[in-house]
Amino acid sequence: MSNAATDRQPIQGLVAELGGDIVTTDPAVMERYRYDWARDDRAGMPLAVVRAENAEQVQAAVRWADTHRVGIVPRGAGSGLSGGSTAVEQALVISTERMRAITIDPGARVAIVEPGALNAEVKAAAAEHGLWYPPDPSSFEICSIGGNLATNAGGLCCVKYGVTTDYVLGLDVVIPDGTLIKMGGVRVKDVAGLSLMKLFVGSEGTLGVITRGILKLVPGQADRATMVATFSDVEAAARAVVGMCSTIRPSMLEFMDGPSINLVEDYLHAGLDRQAGAMLIAQSDAPGPARSFEISIMEKVCADLGAIECFVTDDPEEGEMFVAARRASFPAMERAGSLMLEDVGVAIPLLPDLVTGIAAIAERTGTTIPVVAHAGDGNTHPNIIYDPTVPGARDAAQQAFDEVIALAIRLGGTITGEHGVGRLKKSALPDQLGPDVMALSHKIKNAIDPHGIMNPGAVL
Amino acid sequence: MSNAATDRQPIQGLVAELGGDIVTTDPAVMERYRYDWARDDRAGMPLAVVRAENAEQVQAAVRWADTHRVGIVPRGAGSGLSGGSTAVEQALVISTERMRAITIDPGARVAIVEPGALNAEVKAAAAEHGLWYPPDPSSFEICSIGGNLATNAGGLCCVKYGVTTDYVLGLDVVIPDGTLIKMGGVRVKDVAGLSLMKLFVGSEGTLGVITRGILKLVPGQADRATMVATFSDVEAAARAVVGMCSTIRPSMLEFMDGPSINLVEDYLHAGLDRQAGAMLIAQSDAPGPARSFEISIMEKVCADLGAIECFVTDDPEEGEMFVAARRASFPAMERAGSLMLEDVGVAIPLLPDLVTGIAAIAERTGTTIPVVAHAGDGNTHPNIIYDPTVPGARDAAQQAFDEVIALAIRLGGTITGEHGVGRLKKSALPDQLGPDVMALSHKIKNAIDPHGIMNPGAVL
Repeated sequence: MSNAATDRQPIQGLVAELGGDIVTTDPAVMERYRYDWARDDRAGMPLAVVRAENAEQVQAAVRWADTHRVGIVPRGAGSGLSGGSTAVEQALVISTERMRAITIDPGARVAIVEPGALNAEVKAAAAEHGLWYPPDPSSFEICSIGGNLATNAGGLCCVKYGVTTDYVLGLDVVIPDGTLIKMGGVRVKDVAGLSLMKLFVGSEGTLGVITRGILKLVPGQADRATMVATFSDVEAAARAVVGMCSTIRPSMLEFMDGPSINLVEDYLHAGLDRQAGAMLIAQSDAPGPARSFEISIMEKVCADLGAIECFVTDDPEEGEMFVAARRASFPAMERAGSLMLEDVGVAIPLLPDLVTGIAAIAERTGTTIPVVAHAGDGNTHPNIIYDPTVPGARDAAQQAFDEVIALAIRLGGTITGEHGVGRLKKSALPDQLGPDVMALSHKIKNAIDPHGIMNPGAVL
Repeated sequence: MSNAATDRQPIQGLVAELGGDIVTTDPAVMERYRYDWARDDRAGMPLAVVRAENAEQVQAAVRWADTHRVGIVPRGAGSGLSGGSTAVEQALVISTERMRAITIDPGARVAIVEPGALNAEVKAAAAEHGLWYPPDPSSFEICSIGGNLATNAGGLCCVKYGVTTDYVLGLDVVIPDGTLIKMGGVRVKDVAGLSLMKLFVGSEGTLGVITRGILKLVPGQADRATMVATFSDVEAAARAVVGMCSTIRPSMLEFMDGPSINLVEDYLHAGLDRQAGAMLIAQSDAPGPARSFEISIMEKVCADLGAIECFVTDDPEEGEMFVAARRASFPAMERAGSLMLEDVGVAIPLLPDLVTGIAAIAERTGTTIPVVAHAGDGNTHPNIIYDPTVPGARDAAQQAFDEVIALAIRLGGTITGEHGVGRLKKSALPDQLGPDVMALSHKIKNAIDPHGIMNPGAVL
């Protein structure tokens, strides 16, 4: 490498510092780091991909980018659904996929994790000590814990156990000037100083690169009993959700509408009721004999609201069949066409308004929008299915996408309950937050990232 | 009021704007707003006390203070223990005591509260709908929900149910330029944009004045069964805490050491075992028949670790007697002398190190330091008792106070688990957080409060 080349291509300085195995500029390799699951075809080609093995290497890469005013796109497993990890042209991708260490401290009930570890790997490591890390995005087998932290990921058990931020006791983050900031620690309660840690959780790579998390664990989950109820319409199902959640705390409370049920049935042939307008899948993990007690309350609420059928099982495998049907909604929908994934949430009593409003949007725009939901949290995934080979279909889908978001905001809800804003929902964020919160967000962003190098074009 | 007077005393402009009932400069009235429960004798005399009745009046007062570069000390019920609401000489105290509205939305399971409402009032309003707001500082009957939000308050049920920040779905805050920022809303899951809301929770009035909270509610707590176990030494008790928390989730797990037991017994004559080296008070609120199941596990863990005695009761009133003994530790200690209140926390397995270290500090400094703890969270209250009439006693107490804080930091712990930094622990904060986190905290503070008017002298 000549000095002239160094001048022309300053990235070679970083290659020289960290080595070619860590910093790659090979286009064939970089191609694999351009997209996340949002499959955004506007993805750029990175300047280089840094596959860091430790926090020091992340610091070196961030310092280099800060010096050269080069953007950084942090990347975990690339399973994000909002384009938060979509590569930016001539920016640095910093991948944490090689940072995967997990240490469990069973006495303190914490997991100390590097960001590249998969959510499922953290769960498995905790389970070896009879402990449990609850947050469970549907993608838990393939998504990284760093991505979970960066998006404040949710999941199915959140209705009882909360979301990622509720489990974060400590966080190491490399901020744009290259400083490694260590926040929190191995202690359950800590109110010393500003809650910077919670600010970084869910910041989607716009404030820094997460290099370590200290996560709270709880005792292993008890066996679950399952209740499945079908309803003729979505409103009765939504009212059953309200009824259940005001008396007990289900460990899962999922919703599928009629179109979702039919798509999954096309895919799995599991014997779901194709005539049902809506289905609820609820579980109880109450300790010991309390499970049947909670399930009986669920049954009564559903029966009182005119459920067509109510099925109950204590058999974990039989229960898992129904959960698998719910989890299969994403592949079942992907099979049916191209997807635009929504993640809108409203107050639980407004679920019927949201779902009926979505049906009206589908009809008006000529699109198909099956809805599944983490119903107990009011967080829905209306996924717009379209055929990209049909002229105008993508535009109609985009119109439906925008209208669903506008509907959620009109109902006082959110454009994203758990996926994040990323790049796909960025334009809608000001409509939800309003100018004052946006202005304050920019103040905070500028205070931490004055040169705007962190995940440029995402969220803000 | 002449113009000349206005010029000399610009506060008269605010009096004229909001009225003399809202803005008082009467020294006799202001005297009541100088201290919180930290009873810091360095408290100043405010310029005026603003007893706002709504967010608009808070905005007017903040705008006035920002214009005139006058400091603001936000104040809830004044029950803080770290001096966060201690009045500052010639600053404005903004009290939220008159803003007390509480609205419960049972379908959405939220409480929409003004900051002056007491924690107990929020609990009572929720209970009318069969719902429950869990966070329960020992002072819940007299502390305000705004103060709870500002300090991210904890309590006894946090071991199972988490702390204040885990229940905040929405927050309105008047920031130093007078803008009313509305964050979050009536929705359980929401990851749209930076998590500004969580940054304000626990910021102890250094970033703005909280004018409204939207709080998550859960179904009413089931009846509790209680187990009380005594041990010959603190180490066995601490090991029992670790053992219980790794298999079940007690709804309460409190600790008292021998000196605390004896002080409470002096005060209440409740028949506690004065010979015990430590006592654990644990509760289960598992649904229905699972309570006795959980209690039996607690009993077994304590018996296996050599508990002297293990007492179990399903009778809520009998159980409450023991909880009342635990809650009485503060008045019992106050009766024994002047107090310096600690709030240090460590990882649970380090509880024995912390407690034995505190005993050594007490001996070395010639002070009395009984310890009570929210043991399941590793959060302890070693309270230094001294006789202010004895020459040198206050200095010895201060030395013990500083040494306990240094010990907690040395053990990787926190100087405050739930009370806040306020003014009393401000000097120790950099020792815990280190220069990088302090620098980042100042960046955030300056971005939101560039003139440094919010709670000057507190926390940072």
